[in-house]
Amino acid sequence: MMILYQYWMSSSSWRVRWALRIKGLEFEQVSLDLRAGAQLAPEHRARNPMGYVPAVVVDGRCLAESVAILEWLDETHPTPPLYPKDPWLRARTRQLVELINAGTQPLQNLAVVERHSKDKDERKAWMAHFNERGLEAFNGVVGIVDGELDRVGKFCVGDSLTAADLYLVPQLASARRFGVDVAKWPRLLAAESAALATPHASAALPENQPDAPRGK
Amino acid sequence: MMILYQYWMSSSSWRVRWALRIKGLEFEQVSLDLRAGAQLAPEHRARNPMGYVPAVVVDGRCLAESVAILEWLDETHPTPPLYPKDPWLRARTRQLVELINAGTQPLQNLAVVERHSKDKDERKAWMAHFNERGLEAFNGVVGIVDGELDRVGKFCVGDSLTAADLYLVPQLASARRFGVDVAKWPRLLAAESAALATPHASAALPENQPDAPRGK
Repeated sequence: MMILYQYWMSSSSWRVRWALRIKGLEFEQVSLDLRAGAQLAPEHRARNPMGYVPAVVVDGRCLAESVAILEWLDETHPTPPLYPKDPWLRARTRQLVELINAGTQPLQNLAVVERHSKDKDERKAWMAHFNERGLEAFNGVVGIVDGELDRVGKFCVGDSLTAADLYLVPQLASARRFGVDVAKWPRLLAAESAALATPHASAALPENQPDAPRGK
Repeated sequence: MMILYQYWMSSSSWRVRWALRIKGLEFEQVSLDLRAGAQLAPEHRARNPMGYVPAVVVDGRCLAESVAILEWLDETHPTPPLYPKDPWLRARTRQLVELINAGTQPLQNLAVVERHSKDKDERKAWMAHFNERGLEAFNGVVGIVDGELDRVGKFCVGDSLTAADLYLVPQLASARRFGVDVAKWPRLLAAESAALATPHASAALPENQPDAPRGK
């Protein structure tokens, strides 16, 4: 059985938990406490030399990076798909994914924020700034997608859940946590609501993970 | 004909220039001067709301994010391939790509470095730190790939050039610019040499672009 190394609050872990459930795969979930530095232990660095979660272990081989995991899942378990069939819409989906995965989330990574400043307020301002910048760009690209589809879809790309939604939802949660006013992006909030109403969304939510604090 | 908006020194532009040439596609190359802020002009933000290069325009539609462009090129022009056929090696290739694309390069982005510090030495230290961290992790994953291949390949993943090489080569160039001692990664330097010896490498080099300063 597959093993998923994760942390309840990690947005990258959230994406992969969600994808595994959409694909209907059984997996064992092992939690690493990022606040205690468990991801930096040599045994985890052997799984992922970057010292990040998530990482999956399949037949004794370990894979990290949420994009690599999602694409691999989609190639080896194609139904239901996480990417559209049309090549251009697949490209748009990946553009949206990278706007979060490369353009936004890395900048709020713990190791990056700690290297930036020791000041708590400055850290929060930094994270708010880059969340706002990334989601503003994401909103612009969703507008382009809607224009190309010649109408407004229910999700980020058309009327089916795609990988783009699995990146948007955790990022909006981060943005709220850092005090970003997300109400200015009604199109993104509509896609978020649609995504959260799909069958496997609830089981993947941070607060529903075994390592989440109780009574919150 | 396709149009590529790029900047000679941009490592993301380098990857896409290289991929387009490997695929044998004709394209018009338009340069934006990042030092003058041309990427932030409204006309470019309409192409890429993030205000980054590269961006390609195809049949009047614009696509950005190097990963989305490379995957789209590979799906629409499969020969020669930029990703291996085997699903697990494809996943490894994407893991390496994201170690650079999400884990390393975004942290040296101009907008990020400018937000971090006004001090020139601190900026250089920041960029050196994250280049070293990212390439150290990349080196670790290449070691895993070699172990799984049961021998050391010529390139990052086996004996064919893949997208992973197109991300490694520009990042090693950045690392050298920021003063990182790259000699500690002989396996990466061997892959770099192999990649630079392939037919289309030279035409994609920064110094061979029309917007590069002459006589340098």
